[in-house]
Amino acid sequence: MEVNADNFFKAAALDKPRVTNKVGSNVTLINVMQIAGLNTLGISIARIDYAPLGQNPPHTHPRATEILTVLEGTLYVGFVTSNQPAPNRNKFLSKVLNKGDVFVFPVGLIHFQFNPNPHKPAVAIAALSSQNPGAITIANAVFGSDPQISDDVLAKAFQVEKNTIDWLQAQFWENNH
Amino acid sequence: MEVNADNFFKAAALDKPRVTNKVGSNVTLINVMQIAGLNTLGISIARIDYAPLGQNPPHTHPRATEILTVLEGTLYVGFVTSNQPAPNRNKFLSKVLNKGDVFVFPVGLIHFQFNPNPHKPAVAIAALSSQNPGAITIANAVFGSDPQISDDVLAKAFQVEKNTIDWLQAQFWENNH
Amino acid sequence: MEVNADNFFKAAALDKPRVTNKVGSNVTLINVMQIAGLNTLGISIARIDYAPLGQNPPHTHPRATEILTVLEGTLYVGFVTSNQPAPNRNKFLSKVLNKGDVFVFPVGLIHFQFNPNPHKPAVAIAALSSQNPGAITIANAVFGSDPQISDDVLAKAFQVEKNTIDWLQAQFWENNH
Amino acid sequence: MEVNADNFFKAAALDKPRVTNKVGSNVTLINVMQIAGLNTLGISIARIDYAPLGQNPPHTHPRATEILTVLEGTLYVGFVTSNQPAPNRNKFLSKVLNKGDVFVFPVGLIHFQFNPNPHKPAVAIAALSSQNPGAITIANAVFGSDPQISDDVLAKAFQVEKNTIDWLQAQFWENNH
Amino acid sequence: MEVNADNFFKAAALDKPRVTNKVGSNVTLINVMQIAGLNTLGISIARIDYAPLGQNPPHTHPRATEILTVLEGTLYVGFVTSNQPAPNRNKFLSKVLNKGDVFVFPVGLIHFQFNPNPHKPAVAIAALSSQNPGAITIANAVFGSDPQISDDVLAKAFQVEKNTIDWLQAQFWENNH
Amino acid sequence: MEVNADNFFKAAALDKPRVTNKVGSNVTLINVMQIAGLNTLGISIARIDYAPLGQNPPHTHPRATEILTVLEGTLYVGFVTSNQPAPNRNKFLSKVLNKGDVFVFPVGLIHFQFNPNPHKPAVAIAALSSQNPGAITIANAVFGSDPQISDDVLAKAFQVEKNTIDWLQAQFWENNH
Repeated sequence: MEVNADNFFKAAALDKPRVTNKVGSNVTLINVMQIAGLNTLGISIARIDYAPLGQNPPHTHPRATEILTVLEGTLYVGFVTSNQPAPNRNKFLSKVLNKGDVFVFPVGLIHFQFNPNPHKPAVAIAALSSQNPGAITIANAVFGSDPQISDDVLAKAFQVEKNTIDWLQAQFWENNH
Repeated sequence: MEVNADNFFKAAALDKPRVTNKVGSNVTLINVMQIAGLNTLGISIARIDYAPLGQNPPHTHPRATEILTVLEGTLYVGFVTSNQPAPNRNKFLSKVLNKGDVFVFPVGLIHFQFNPNPHKPAVAIAALSSQNPGAITIANAVFGSDPQISDDVLAKAFQVEKNTIDWLQAQFWENNH
Repeated sequence: MEVNADNFFKAAALDKPRVTNKVGSNVTLINVMQIAGLNTLGISIARIDYAPLGQNPPHTHPRATEILTVLEGTLYVGFVTSNQPAPNRNKFLSKVLNKGDVFVFPVGLIHFQFNPNPHKPAVAIAALSSQNPGAITIANAVFGSDPQISDDVLAKAFQVEKNTIDWLQAQFWENNH
Repeated sequence: MEVNADNFFKAAALDKPRVTNKVGSNVTLINVMQIAGLNTLGISIARIDYAPLGQNPPHTHPRATEILTVLEGTLYVGFVTSNQPAPNRNKFLSKVLNKGDVFVFPVGLIHFQFNPNPHKPAVAIAALSSQNPGAITIANAVFGSDPQISDDVLAKAFQVEKNTIDWLQAQFWENNH
Repeated sequence: MEVNADNFFKAAALDKPRVTNKVGSNVTLINVMQIAGLNTLGISIARIDYAPLGQNPPHTHPRATEILTVLEGTLYVGFVTSNQPAPNRNKFLSKVLNKGDVFVFPVGLIHFQFNPNPHKPAVAIAALSSQNPGAITIANAVFGSDPQISDDVLAKAFQVEKNTIDWLQAQFWENNH
Repeated sequence: MEVNADNFFKAAALDKPRVTNKVGSNVTLINVMQIAGLNTLGISIARIDYAPLGQNPPHTHPRATEILTVLEGTLYVGFVTSNQPAPNRNKFLSKVLNKGDVFVFPVGLIHFQFNPNPHKPAVAIAALSSQNPGAITIANAVFGSDPQISDDVLAKAFQVEKNTIDWLQAQFWENNH
């Protein structure tokens, strides 16, 4: 098979603002599904748009570390460490990032970005150490899965009433499907 | 340095029942911190105890796939796939496991085990594909981190009132620290 | 393709005793051939049954480290280090394991388990750091291969008479094929 | 050791234009030397500035694939495949990239970016699949090494007169040291 | 630290014949212990000398595949596949190699080389896919370990009388230590 | 599928001298294209012939480290480090190798071998840490690609006149295609 440049290219329009979703963000990921030439090469890239007060809500990438730089605006970002012994047990590490700052979210850890500015959008470029990093939005996976996880299980896990779980599930189902 | 058998051994008492925690489970993990000879070898093992109606609540392992077999009792187990396109978008895959059954939880995906029996405990042996797999209990990391994640961020991410978040944070902080 | 829970499940009956072979053991391995969802995930699990005075004879796994815990009975286990300089040259590291103990056999090293009890069986669960670890029983591979290795070669390698090799080959051929 | 957010952060000023070098470019790389928390995580990020008619000259990354997106201006980019059989033998794959386009340079291949606009600068963000990707500028390594490679060797390799090599070496030595 | 060429060099005299051991071979391995610059680079090289009718007896490399080419003489080589289902169960694959032929021994499999010529030595160059491949000579590890493996275990594993095992152990102990 | 020894074998004639090319060398590489059994095993081997005053010109292997030993003659070899900070910035490490000496060329770095003897050929065996290491001859890739790289780009990168580039391109095109 003769290779050509289009196997390594995508007119991804990463310079263009995107309409943001209900929580005020939009991730445009360019991975091996968009660029076949990335296969086995272990990297992908994304543009992330944030509405004023918008967020890319708590999520993980099961197969990638993420490195992010802010192009426009300000972001309050953070991740939580795993169930380690003290002093690092579920420690929340956070930082306010300004334009041009760089931050790293290690593989598999729960992290988020939030735009604290009520008037201006923010934009970031993020790179991920996998050609297919995957993303798991915590609230969607836990409360908006198809089918839904038993409310008995979730009520005990999150220590709330079952009707709170049911209400959350109704909401996230609608958002997610 | 002369190696000896104790570098590869732990009197781990994995045959002994453990007292379970608030949500009714207890994970006894034998990893590279317990057996130094595991270093670079990419595997660890755990015994998990479940009280009647107890659960090992939704969690992920950032650096390992888990394979589990039931030794005693019954377990209702499941995991949720990532934010993929349909038909696999945040799909919840679950199974009731009886004694001797085997189930796999792929690396980084949110999963749980629940003992549906109101009278009898359950026990499982799980193996993980890392000498230091890590574990992130979702509720603890999201609501019980140190310091706590801003309730503004979490209220929007989970689409609940800030005082619900505050109440969850108070509860999980107490459990977790 | 829509995934489902059965891609990650096997009703493996790992709780059930197995009939043991001539040397008094039986390995029930659950790997990627039994659970397709293990593909690329780098782990597998096995139940091992030992008759009274039975053994899982000297063998290696070419692609995996093994971590083992004893469920029933007692096991005398060991492995031999490689051709290193002293003091670790072909050193035999061994241990008597009781119920609940954990032991590690590093990738590619020759190891065995032996049940020293003349009256009671033993049972272990072992996990391996590959979805397809492979197993090479030393005696079977050396003396029971198809076709047989030249007895000239083996006589010199094992420093015995050729008719001893011929006798071993006749025996292991019958066992192994 | 207690981790903190600064282990994962760099005030890298990737939003700020840089003064470009003699060939009209400047690469600002944020790797494990700038952010210690990147260790073992396999990714890094860079801003690249291009003067009008400037170039990031032919180079390779010995340990990383690169994925690049254009933030400002236009870039003419390309890489050359390895010494394979036809039809892919030393094939030059090139593309004109506009703002927002994405292109991939596979690990170890010789590639460059050139700003064809005589009046306007260009800017790109590139991510690399290693915490320490390395970079080898072909002309600098071949003609500007310390000490210099024998001109006998280079004259034959590049099929030019030795005094041409000597002149190139004098020039690149000055640029590079 | 300033690197220099000696970090990547060894005056290994791989062109010089070696005195062979009791079974008629000698392996001169150049790995990361001889050349520190090999660290993390995953390769090593060896010269192997074979006396007339000499052999490099059945052994495995726990962490490397081997590729071998014959420089002088003739070699009868082979390896045995693992305990797979038929038709590949403990299959012995062998070949007579002449000068200039190349053969591959996959990672962890038991293999040997034998010089069938009663008058002339043979020489090979072998490369291994690890900077520290390890080597386990089967007879030495099984019968010549320190301390010795219980003759009860070995008698049953190899299906011979205990006094045969004792005799083998006495012999290999002397050779090996 | 039943495996057989030919899947792991090649009658490669690595003992036979080869006719050398214009710059006085010839690389006979045995990789996964010649021996299918090398697949996933991460190693390959080559014979390299050098005419008197011949060279294996500056090149890189994008996916492999190389370890080389001299079988006949003398070789002047070297590699150049990457664009690191001083004292290791584009440092040229070189060595004169005699018969039996061993040298390592780390993955992705530009290296060459030159036979300084005006009367005698030289021969080496090299092993590479990939079943498909790839090779990029710098001069061919830069000046002899198909299609040719713009002479504007190359003139600036190599700081020579465009007609010098054009002349080089004409020459290498002819050699390379």
